Amino acid sequence: MPRLVMKFGGTSVANVERIRNVARHVRREVEAGYDVAVVVSAMAGKTNELVAWCKEAAPIYDPKEYDVVVASGEQVTSGLLALVLQNDGLPARSWQGWQIPIRTSDQHGAARIASIDGSGILDGFEARREVAVVSGFQGVHAETSRIATLGRGGSDTSAVALAAALGAERCDIYTDVDGVYTTDPRIVPKARRLDRVAFEEMLEMASLGAKVLQVRSVELAMLYRVPTYVRSSFDDPADPKPGTLICDEEDIVEQSVVTGIAFSKDEAQITLRRVADKPGVAAAIFGPLADQNVNVDMIIQVVSDDEATTDITFTVPAADYERSRAILEENRERIGLKDIQGATDVVKVSAIGVGMRSHAGVASRAFRALAEKGINIRAITTSEIKFSVLIDAAYTELAVRTLHSLYGLDKA
Amino acid sequence: MPRLVMKFGGTSVANVERIRNVARHVRREVEAGYDVAVVVSAMAGKTNELVAWCKEAAPIYDPKEYDVVVASGEQVTSGLLALVLQNDGLPARSWQGWQIPIRTSDQHGAARIASIDGSGILDGFEARREVAVVSGFQGVHAETSRIATLGRGGSDTSAVALAAALGAERCDIYTDVDGVYTTDPRIVPKARRLDRVAFEEMLEMASLGAKVLQVRSVELAMLYRVPTYVRSSFDDPADPKPGTLICDEEDIVEQSVVTGIAFSKDEAQITLRRVADKPGVAAAIFGPLADQNVNVDMIIQVVSDDEATTDITFTVPAADYERSRAILEENRERIGLKDIQGATDVVKVSAIGVGMRSHAGVASRAFRALAEKGINIRAITTSEIKFSVLIDAAYTELAVRTLHSLYGLDKA
Repeated sequence: MPRLVMKFGGTSVANVERIRNVARHVRREVEAGYDVAVVVSAMAGKTNELVAWCKEAAPIYDPKEYDVVVASGEQVTSGLLALVLQNDGLPARSWQGWQIPIRTSDQHGAARIASIDGSGILDGFEARREVAVVSGFQGVHAETSRIATLGRGGSDTSAVALAAALGAERCDIYTDVDGVYTTDPRIVPKARRLDRVAFEEMLEMASLGAKVLQVRSVELAMLYRVPTYVRSSFDDPADPKPGTLICDEEDIVEQSVVTGIAFSKDEAQITLRRVADKPGVAAAIFGPLADQNVNVDMIIQVVSDDEATTDITFTVPAADYERSRAILEENRERIGLKDIQGATDVVKVSAIGVGMRSHAGVASRAFRALAEKGINIRAITTSEIKFSVLIDAAYTELAVRTLHSLYGLDKA
Repeated sequence: MPRLVMKFGGTSVANVERIRNVARHVRREVEAGYDVAVVVSAMAGKTNELVAWCKEAAPIYDPKEYDVVVASGEQVTSGLLALVLQNDGLPARSWQGWQIPIRTSDQHGAARIASIDGSGILDGFEARREVAVVSGFQGVHAETSRIATLGRGGSDTSAVALAAALGAERCDIYTDVDGVYTTDPRIVPKARRLDRVAFEEMLEMASLGAKVLQVRSVELAMLYRVPTYVRSSFDDPADPKPGTLICDEEDIVEQSVVTGIAFSKDEAQITLRRVADKPGVAAAIFGPLADQNVNVDMIIQVVSDDEATTDITFTVPAADYERSRAILEENRERIGLKDIQGATDVVKVSAIGVGMRSHAGVASRAFRALAEKGINIRAITTSEIKFSVLIDAAYTELAVRTLHSLYGLDKA
């Protein structure tokens, strides 16, 4: 029998009635001839409640105990879905991370999957076509036998990793949207659902602000070449739409230059004025930030009015903004800087498409179009298949719409 | 260091604020020089919520999946208490049943503890006086690695079994009452808190309707001679009262004839009229009931008016009443019975005391006292250290108060 991994997020399992709907999707695939493993998240709102209790218990909490508390949410859902499936006459059983086991690193709260032993689940497939209902988001650290969670959105990663371990034909990620769009439809009503996206594009889109999948899950899908669908759990279980397939670039026939426009408000800009322009200054600035695990993204250096000094602008995650300024203040003398300026009301807008590899001048068209709208670009970064611009947050919608139209992504 | 097991029930851990109070009790014992293992229940109301979801998911549910769902409640509490203790500066970690492991039978939903490996917890004691926060109510079936729960009140059993496994000096069961009473104070305001109760007495009291401890926990306390206190979590953590000690009979200096009066409304009476009085009839009646796991309790047989037949009265748990009648109807011909009568508005009132062993006529005084109040006795059973009478439920309070006074249990 071919194998299939299906994953359902929190809104899809928010209560027993919704879980019954999930069971209908599962039954359809079982009847279509698949051996099915279903990965489930905690019921909507549960994880937030559990996290709030942890914070109330200890403002600075031990991530090992945090993991014990929050992993309970998925445990509840997995048991309930197994009960519903059994009640519908399908053989089913729940699997917790430690039972499979899904072995992880010991970075509690943001653990990485090290290995998955699929043998127990495969035995259930062979013996009685038993549906495996797997708690997402969790695994176990092999040496300590402690529960470890994968970070927010980790159930996507559980699903893709399990699909790879089981040799599944594909992995279906059911969400509350019906696929991946050219950009956020709440910002651009003309946004189109994509039939197919290349792994590399999806990875950039997820990294650059599209919230549809956890970045790590796309990395794994790409690494293990797992065809992955993003589709809606709210479709009629008897006649669902296919959603968006994330697949190899070669499997996409009609490739446009730009596939999607992503944006992220989770950025802050820091500018250092009149830094001494001498060797080693970059290390003096970015070394201490790296030591404190601050992820510096866009970096621009321009010569200032004063010839002996330079201005340096870069971005950091908004959550690390205050901390980053404090680190720089501590190192002010070593860096030899005069002035620190910053802004948190900025947004990074990105255009992504594997077609950029073979087309020149894609980004420069954007710079011109944005300039014509009076939008000032504060920073630019480019890579082989994407470019990003940092602009004032007030221009987010205008910039996204402008680029969406510019690259022909608007609905016909 | 001497070792101590403390157990806190659902109302004692109902929210993070109450859990903080639990941590104060734990700190007191750690500072008094104990290495401490704390067994916790689910937050009050949680188990009911989880059970309701299971029933909604599947009216007839697989107990293996039920166990997965309900065991999550204790997991949450154990993680939260560990966080609170750490936040207060005490080394602490949570332990789930499968991590210790607490190995159980495979009777999911009502599993029995088979063995406990205390070595991990003891390592934590030795290495850093680490408080072990243990999820009560749960264990793991060794062969299948599936989560198994111990039935309602099972955390008491977890605590006593753990105390035995760790060689603890004693086991403190913290509840919302401050000890074991001579009877239910809601029925008899003059009920007294007992300083000490013998294991055997506590076992009878728990079996006969006193809800303070799970029967199995008392069996284990008796078997392993674990001195067990029942005490209040609502006492001032800085100056708590000792509660009631459950201990060896020999450790109780002032032994009264009757220690307590228990009652159970969870009874139903069945009377079979004019059963053929021939050999094998008892087997014909009670065999089919035993085969269907109905626990028959009090049995009385009296010769009826007709000399060739007999009337047989017995009790079954109220929950099994309808089912028992149906089983008897099915076997009506084999039994050769004419008429089945029954009553569910009955109550079993019991007097318990190890002193009965050495005192004659204890029960007969009760029969006289009840008769004087006009209370009709429907059935009687006696054993070495208790007797029980089955009466109309309407007389419950009157009968309990009468016996409570009769045996000198009223407060001075």
